[in-house]
Order: sequence, then C-alpha cells, then structure tokens
Amino acid sequence: MGELFRRFWLPVLMPSELPTPDCPPVRVRILGEDLVAFRDSSGRVGLLEERCAHRGASLFFGRNEECGLRCVYHGWKYDVEGTCLEMPNEPAESSYRQKVKQNAYPTREYGGLIWAYLGPSELAPELPALEWALACPDQRALFKWEYNAGYLQGMEGEVDTAHLTFLHRYFDRSFAPGNLNTLVDGAPQLAVQDTDYGLMYGGRRRTADGQGYNWRVSHWLLPTYSLLPGDFPRGGRCYVPIDDEHTWVFAYYYHPHRPLAEPELARLHSGLSSWPALIPGTFRPAVNAENDYGLDREMQRTVNFTGIAGVSDQDRAIVESMGPLYDRSKEHLGTSDVAVIAVRRILMKLARDLQKGIEPFAPSHGDAYRVRALEAVAQQEDFGSFAEAHMERLRPGDLVMAP
Amino acid sequence: MGELFRRFWLPVLMPSELPTPDCPPVRVRILGEDLVAFRDSSGRVGLLEERCAHRGASLFFGRNEECGLRCVYHGWKYDVEGTCLEMPNEPAESSYRQKVKQNAYPTREYGGLIWAYLGPSELAPELPALEWALACPDQRALFKWEYNAGYLQGMEGEVDTAHLTFLHRYFDRSFAPGNLNTLVDGAPQLAVQDTDYGLMYGGRRRTADGQGYNWRVSHWLLPTYSLLPGDFPRGGRCYVPIDDEHTWVFAYYYHPHRPLAEPELARLHSGLSSWPALIPGTFRPAVNAENDYGLDREMQRTVNFTGIAGVSDQDRAIVESMGPLYDRSKEHLGTSDVAVIAVRRILMKLARDLQKGIEPFAPSHGDAYRVRALEAVAQQEDFGSFAEAHMERLRPGDLVMAP
Amino acid sequence: MGELFRRFWLPVLMPSELPTPDCPPVRVRILGEDLVAFRDSSGRVGLLEERCAHRGASLFFGRNEECGLRCVYHGWKYDVEGTCLEMPNEPAESSYRQKVKQNAYPTREYGGLIWAYLGPSELAPELPALEWALACPDQRALFKWEYNAGYLQGMEGEVDTAHLTFLHRYFDRSFAPGNLNTLVDGAPQLAVQDTDYGLMYGGRRRTADGQGYNWRVSHWLLPTYSLLPGDFPRGGRCYVPIDDEHTWVFAYYYHPHRPLAEPELARLHSGLSSWPALIPGTFRPAVNAENDYGLDREMQRTVNFTGIAGVSDQDRAIVESMGPLYDRSKEHLGTSDVAVIAVRRILMKLARDLQKGIEPFAPSHGDAYRVRALEAVAQQEDFGSFAEAHMERLRPGDLVMAP
Repeated sequence: MGELFRRFWLPVLMPSELPTPDCPPVRVRILGEDLVAFRDSSGRVGLLEERCAHRGASLFFGRNEECGLRCVYHGWKYDVEGTCLEMPNEPAESSYRQKVKQNAYPTREYGGLIWAYLGPSELAPELPALEWALACPDQRALFKWEYNAGYLQGMEGEVDTAHLTFLHRYFDRSFAPGNLNTLVDGAPQLAVQDTDYGLMYGGRRRTADGQGYNWRVSHWLLPTYSLLPGDFPRGGRCYVPIDDEHTWVFAYYYHPHRPLAEPELARLHSGLSSWPALIPGTFRPAVNAENDYGLDREMQRTVNFTGIAGVSDQDRAIVESMGPLYDRSKEHLGTSDVAVIAVRRILMKLARDLQKGIEPFAPSHGDAYRVRALEAVAQQEDFGSFAEAHMERLRPGDLVMAP
Repeated sequence: MGELFRRFWLPVLMPSELPTPDCPPVRVRILGEDLVAFRDSSGRVGLLEERCAHRGASLFFGRNEECGLRCVYHGWKYDVEGTCLEMPNEPAESSYRQKVKQNAYPTREYGGLIWAYLGPSELAPELPALEWALACPDQRALFKWEYNAGYLQGMEGEVDTAHLTFLHRYFDRSFAPGNLNTLVDGAPQLAVQDTDYGLMYGGRRRTADGQGYNWRVSHWLLPTYSLLPGDFPRGGRCYVPIDDEHTWVFAYYYHPHRPLAEPELARLHSGLSSWPALIPGTFRPAVNAENDYGLDREMQRTVNFTGIAGVSDQDRAIVESMGPLYDRSKEHLGTSDVAVIAVRRILMKLARDLQKGIEPFAPSHGDAYRVRALEAVAQQEDFGSFAEAHMERLRPGDLVMAP
Repeated sequence: MGELFRRFWLPVLMPSELPTPDCPPVRVRILGEDLVAFRDSSGRVGLLEERCAHRGASLFFGRNEECGLRCVYHGWKYDVEGTCLEMPNEPAESSYRQKVKQNAYPTREYGGLIWAYLGPSELAPELPALEWALACPDQRALFKWEYNAGYLQGMEGEVDTAHLTFLHRYFDRSFAPGNLNTLVDGAPQLAVQDTDYGLMYGGRRRTADGQGYNWRVSHWLLPTYSLLPGDFPRGGRCYVPIDDEHTWVFAYYYHPHRPLAEPELARLHSGLSSWPALIPGTFRPAVNAENDYGLDREMQRTVNFTGIAGVSDQDRAIVESMGPLYDRSKEHLGTSDVAVIAVRRILMKLARDLQKGIEPFAPSHGDAYRVRALEAVAQQEDFGSFAEAHMERLRPGDLVMAP
C-alpha cells in the first residue's frame, strides 16, 4: 500500500512551515521515512533524507545557506535535488562529490500546500485539480494536525455519512457549531459508484414532507481525499500516512465564488468545529488521548452525544480509540458501511494491480479530480439515475468559476 | 496459567467506581483483555469488550443510557450481557442486530467488590465464602491499587513469613505502624499443607520462655488470596493480573464481630500501613519507582530496615525492583521459601491438569474458602499435629459469627 | 565486541558517587548489565549484580552495613567480592550461605575514577598508565555524562580531526571557548599508524607561510580513549558502553606540570566548552534531544556553525542525531575518514581474534598507554618520518614529570 501512495503527489507541509528563503529546515516524516525540508535562497523547497549521506548526521541541524543545505558535521552541502555541491573536508581536487547523492524527493507548491512525490522518477504524476486547490488563496482556508492511528481509520470516517447522526449529534442544537448537518435519519439508503478518481457515494433520505428524497453525494478521491456536501463554504480532509500508526490530516475549506468571511474563519479556528485547537508551536491537538479528549460526562448527558466539545475532536477520539492499527478481522460491518467497504476494495485492488505492474489511472490524470460534492432534493430513487441527472453539478465544467 | 485464572470469579472493581445507575463507564484491563464496565439503569453491572463489535470504537466513550451502553460512533446499544439492543444505522427492518453480540462477562457484587468470571459459560463457578466477604459492610474495609509487576511476585511476598523480620523491621518500634508483627526470629521452622482451597502454612518459633512454640498459620487460597494471622481486625490481599507485567491488588481488612473503629480505618488510610497512599483520582501509589519509593537513606540507617515509610510501599518497592517479570531461573531458594515453592507447585500442577482437561476443585466449591488464619502458642512441634489439634479454629463452623 | 570490552579495566563511576564508607549504594549499568556499587565500612568499593541471588530483589534498596551490603528482603548480606556473609532467614546451622555467591566484579580506584573489570578472573589486566591518571589530583579535572547512542558514534568523533573545522567553527571567534582550535583548513592530509595501544593518527596542514607543515597527532587508545593535542592543559574522553544505545562519557583534562588554575576549571564547568552542563542531581546533559540541544537558528546564522552554544553539546547533538545505533551501511566515507575506518578495522580484528582465542595485547600492558598527543610545526611530509623524528615527545620517557 505504501507503494501505491508513492504514485501520488502528497501534501506534506504548510508553506508557513517554510516561510522564507533560507529559513530553518524542518523535520518531515512521511510514509515511514524521516526527511528534512528546507527552502533555499531562491525559494525552492527541498525534501531530503534526514541523515547525511556521509556519516548520518541529521540535516535538521544543517545550515540553510546560499542555495543549499549544509551538514554541520563536515560541511557537505546539498541542493534541493540532493546534489552534493561542496565537500570541503575532501581535497580540492577530489571528484568524490560527484559520486555522492543525498536521497531527495521533488516538491511542488500548489493550492496553498507543499506537496511531494515519493515515487519512481520515471513516472510523471500530475497534481490533482481539486477545486479548493484551484481557488484563490483568500477563498480557501487550510489546516493541518496529527492523529495517532493509521490513515485508513480516519479516512473511513470521511466516507461514513451514517456516523454524523450519532457521533456528531447535538441534543441542544444551539451548541452545534456551524453548518453541521444534524441529520435525524441515521439509516439512510446508501449507494456507491466507482469512478476514475475513486468513489462517489450517495446517501438518500426521505424528505420531511415525504414527497421526494434528500440526496447527499460525497466523493472519495485517491488516495485519501474527501469532498463533503453542504452549503458553501465547505471542504474535506486528506489523510497522509506518517507511518503505520500516525497520520497527518490536511483539512481544506473553501468557497468557489468569494473570499471567506471573518466569522467563517473564526469558527474554523475556534477549535469546536471541523478543526481542532492545537498545542501552541505544534500540530498536536490540545484535546487528546491523555486527557480523554476533554470528555465531560455531564455534557454527554445533556448537550451532545459524546460529551466532547469539538466536532473534529469527536472524530479523533473515536478513530484513535480503535487503537493505532485496528484489527479489522474483529469488525461486524453493516449496510451503512457500504462506502467503507468500497474504499477498501478499491485500495486493495490498486495495490494488487501495482504488484502486477499495472499503474493506477488517477495519479497521471489530475483533471479527473474536477468534481464537486452535492446535496439536493430530487425524485430519483436510484443513485445511478440521480447521478446521471445531476452530472453537470457533480462534474461542473466551470469548476471554481461558478456555483 | 491465564486459563486457570479464568476458572475463578475474580475481583475486578470497587463498587465506588460504578457508584450509581447510568453512571459513566470505566475501563478495566484484566488478564490482558481491555474491557469496559458500566452500571445500567437497573443497577446491574456489565463488563464488555472495550471495542465495539461494529467498527472497533471504544465503548469507554459510550453513553450509558436506559438499560444499555451505546457506542457513540453509530449508536449501537448493548445490554449488560452484550446483546445488541439497537442498531439505528441499519434499516428498521434489518435483523442484523440479532446476529451481533458484544463479548461480555458475567459479574457479581459480593463482599464489597465487583467480581467477574472470564471463563467458559458452561462451567458454574461459585463465589468464594471468604470471611471478609461474608462480613457486614461496616465490619470490613477494602482497598485497591496497582503495581507494576506480574501477580506472582506480589503473591509470593504474601506466603513468605520470613520477610517480615527483615523488610518490615523497625529499629525504632515507635515508628512501626499498627499491629505489624516485628518478629525477631527471622528463621522460623516452616511447614506447608496442601488443602482443597490451596495451601495452609505454618511458621514455628520458640516462645521467649522456651516452654512452647509460637505458631503462625496463614492461608493461601486459589488463585491468589492471602489470609494472614494476628489480632483482629486483620486481613490479606488478592492479586489479580492486569497482564503479565501489571497487577491489581485488592486488600481486605475486617473484624468478624464488630464494626471497624475510626482509628483502625484512619491507620489503614494513613498510607504508612498495609495500604499505600494513592495519586488522587487514580489507583497508582504516590510512592513509586519514579521516586525510588521515597527512599530515605537516613531513615534506613536509624528508623527501619528499608528507609521507606509505608509498610505496603516497602513490599511494592521490593516486588517491583525484581523487574516486571522476574526470571526465576536465577533464584537461589532456601528453606524459608518452602511456601513460595509450594504455591508454584500447586499453580503449575493445576495449570497442567487443566491442559489435560482436569478442572480444578476450588472454583466450584465456594465453601472451601471458610477458613481463618491463626496465631497461637502450643506444645506441638509438628505442623500436622498442630493443625489437627486446632482445626476448629482454622476451619470454624461459626465463620463470621463468633471469634 | 562486548567480550573484547570485558578484557579491559573500564571507568565506571566518579568517586564522588560513593563519597564515604557505608554511603548509599548506587545503580550502575555497564555493558548491558545492571549492577549496584557500594563502598563498604573499610572503604573498599563493591560492584555486585543488582538483583539479589536469593529472589531477585534489587540491592539498590539494600542497607550498606558493617562491611557488607544487605538485601532488605530477607537480610542476605554480601561483601565487596559477592561472598554471602549472612543468611539470617536460614537456620543457624545451615551451610547454604557458602554455596551462594552474588555475581561481583573487581574494582580499583585509580586516576581519580573508579574502575571495574568485567572479564574472566583468570586473566590479569593492568590499569592503563595514562598520563592524566598518573598526574596529581590537583593537576587534573574529571567529568562524566551520558549520551543516548552507541559508544562508537561518539568515539568516531574523537578520531575525526576534520570535523573541528565545521562542527565547531565560530564565525565570531570571540565566542569560541578556550583553546578550541578553529582550523581553517578543513581537508588536512591524514595518516594513521597502528600501535600496540591502538592508533596514532596525524593531520598535516600547510603552515600559513607555506614554509612547512603543521602536524597534529592524536591517539586512540583501546578500547575507547582519546588523547587530543593542543596547549596544556588538555585531555580527551573515554566512551564506556552502558548498552548498545547508551554510553557514559568520562572526560579528563590535565596539566602535567602544575595544578589547574581557577579560570581553567571555571571554563570547563561553564557548560560551553568540552563538558556539558548537567541536569542537577543527574549525569544527563541539560541541553539534549528534547530541547533540540538549545538550537538557536539566529546564532547559527551569525555566531557559529551549529547554533548550539556548548562545544560538547555540538558533538552530542550530531552523534545522537544519527539515531541510537546508526546503520553504517548507509555511509559514504571519504578520505577524511581514514582514522574512523582504522578504528573500526582494529576493533573488528581484535573482536574476531578473541573469538579464535587470541587475547588482545593492550589490556595486560598498562605501560603501552604512556603516550602524549602532539602539535608541532615540522618539515616532514610523511607521517612515518614525522612520528619517528618526534618519538621522544610522543612517547616521553618522563611522562607526567616534564613538559
């Protein structure tokens, strides 16, 4: 599965972590590899193996100097591509420098994030044309945090519309933050449809007047993006494996037509909505396993289902409570888990295909990601018919440009 | 050995941990299993596997609602027997609910503790008729704490009368708490006798006048109870494995004829006697490996043998200092270890018997536990003769009712 | 390799850790073994296996009594040689005491340190006649700290003259502590010469006037001593394995002809020079991985190469940043690593020889250690010729007595 992830461009850093040319390097752990990122004098971002090719000193302690990161142990200096520019402890006439290369991965700045590609260099993946990534910077907000479990546990929560009715239920709606959709029907009719970018899945609930159906259509985009429906601004999350038991969550929130408003941003940063409050100076949520996620049993009796204040904290509490790597042989999946099952099926198939030498389609087709989530009332009973009738809105030609 | 422990009712919680109907659930780890206990609306105690049968969310975060514990992820609700009462994310007509069962263990409230039985349901163990458990609530005191080593290391200290003379020696008797018996003869003549409930062992010391013998008879009751002699009130401890390297200690202290007096309780709760002081809100002793058990070398020179103030802390310091799971192939056992050897022999035999399909006797014979420890001066040289002569006092017919 | 280390006397404690007869015992972990050291009533130092031979209680909690350390569990008492002096829980007539021996290692107080020999008793190693060890106490200063990596990573830094130019470079010389030699030529010509005590290695740089060579000759002495050149007072360090991933560093600093002066000692104890500042009451450096070694990126831009204030902290940051046990198959060694390569070659050869039954020469020839480091300007181009011409100063007959 790691190999499959190495076929995609992956978000790895917020640009604010490397704010200026020659700023301090930062440690990055992705897909179980320890790396160091730095921004060179010309603004390019390098992503190098953490340990120097010479004798293994960490380049995190390196000096970010004129167009290169220099190991402070013996002064070996590398550019963003891992080329060794200087080897000052070798004789001036030595050509050893040309034989040494620091392992490095290509990076891109795109959509308000820094991305990296950890796969084979002969393959040419494209950046995904996700609407939030194409939007103007003031039309989107981005956030990042860590959680202590494998990526799939979090990803599964994204494609699991049924849990909204329970995990995020508020008895007292006045406490429900933002446009959290507190759906009362916890057993919607669910359907999935495989796509070239991953999966489209719809949840159908009867409207209150019984005259039609409320359809909520979400997308799961390879390898780990969600796009969730609702009024704009809205968004989703991407899950990037740190290693088997830790994950970076990158969250996006955007409006396709206008800048985000102050109150919208304030709500996001309140820590009570889709994003957690962080321990200052870190990407670790303040509310975490050590404090039982701030669990308040009285709140659980009277205000909401969990007794945990933040919506994002509710998700993380549950996802981490399964343990760092849940043994799924113990599960009992039901009809509400149809999208969870589909995600696993697709990921497993692509990983097995890759072992046979069959490359996945999505990494080299960035335009496949030009889709939108949708919530609509309609008469169609069948997801296929609904999706066909609303294809214009699910795959809009004017992505970003119009509602 | 885990299988053998699963043949017995085991103390697992203090009732104060589940004080009222519908109170918050608590985590319980016993025999290496992660469980969640809750008290339902009618007051019954449930002990469920921690992770929900659906997708593994921890039921610790569950809502304790009308006669069931509800997982907050998707609302599955279980009763104390693990029956799934509701599955609200499934269609109303679904019968899936009847096919799913959350793993659950039967519990009992008895003798001031909550007990659980983790063994095969077709066997019918009995609760042990231990005197302190049969006594009126105001005639006993109970306590619980954790120690960081396998159960056997602590249990061995219980059947090791010789260590009293050393580990718990006070040079300055004015510091010795309570009725700690600071026996001066550290090399008593020891003898053991197998019984249907475990083991009876006697320590014989010559009386000061040389005219007879002081006999101290303790009991070890399967799987891990001690009953220690001395003036009433008195008691012992039970060691319940959390896992191979951690143990719950349940301590009991009682008087068979009268309520415990205030000063007796105050001494127990002083932290200096048989019970440790705890870190508030936990069952972890305040004096522990991180602070070298409060070791005071000056106190060790002048006041007592260890330089550790609390009697229970003295035991725990030594037991934990062996490491979490001591490699007994490095031991050099002597004649004072006769009871330690006997305990191991019996446990090993019962575990091996069980592998052959031979069930142990004690679990299904609660009445076998109707015994008392005894300290008496007598003429008998031989433990068999002494025990026979004093059988009335060791196995009193009027247990609880008379001295 | 552990077996090879067990052929040498190794520094294990500072005498200040066992200041007086019958003082409290201390824990010592060396070569992966947990031990307890104590000083008995007559001042002799014992080094015993930590866990009592009886039932494994830690002798750290023991009472240091009249000429022996007594286990507080059952009172077994051992002398510095591990002989069991008393076994008070056994019958008075028992001879069991004579059959039990606590594992013990011989110790010596020498050169201001406590040394131990953990090898076979039939071999008779000698203490190394190192100049700093032979010097008067007021002519030397000693220090000890812990680092979290295998011994070899630190040792390799000692025989790596090239790193001085980089890791310890100060742009602003006014910040450079003491006589740190901020050599500007980072690519000296290096040469090594095997010796009976280990290795002598020279770094040759052209003098500023181009008329000759500046030769710096250091020694690496088995198993892990360094002797570094420079003006007196000067010294080196010894690396003693705690286990595969932790090391004790013993540092020595001395003048062969006069007592150390106050300012010299003050500089050493400033924490900015060759020795780290410690967390009070421990041997753990205050500046460590948890605080990124006090890394100050502004200092790194303007003051010195690393942005780390202390010279010793600079070394430790790099050595620990390789990870606790660096996988050297990932290295790319260059010409500046000639001494590193030589050290590994010699250690590997001696370890392999030992497996074949060939004992190393150095442990039984303490006088082989009578050498000095040297810095000198000379005409010799070749290290062999230089060393031969300066043998009097490299192996002075009047060691300690004259400059």
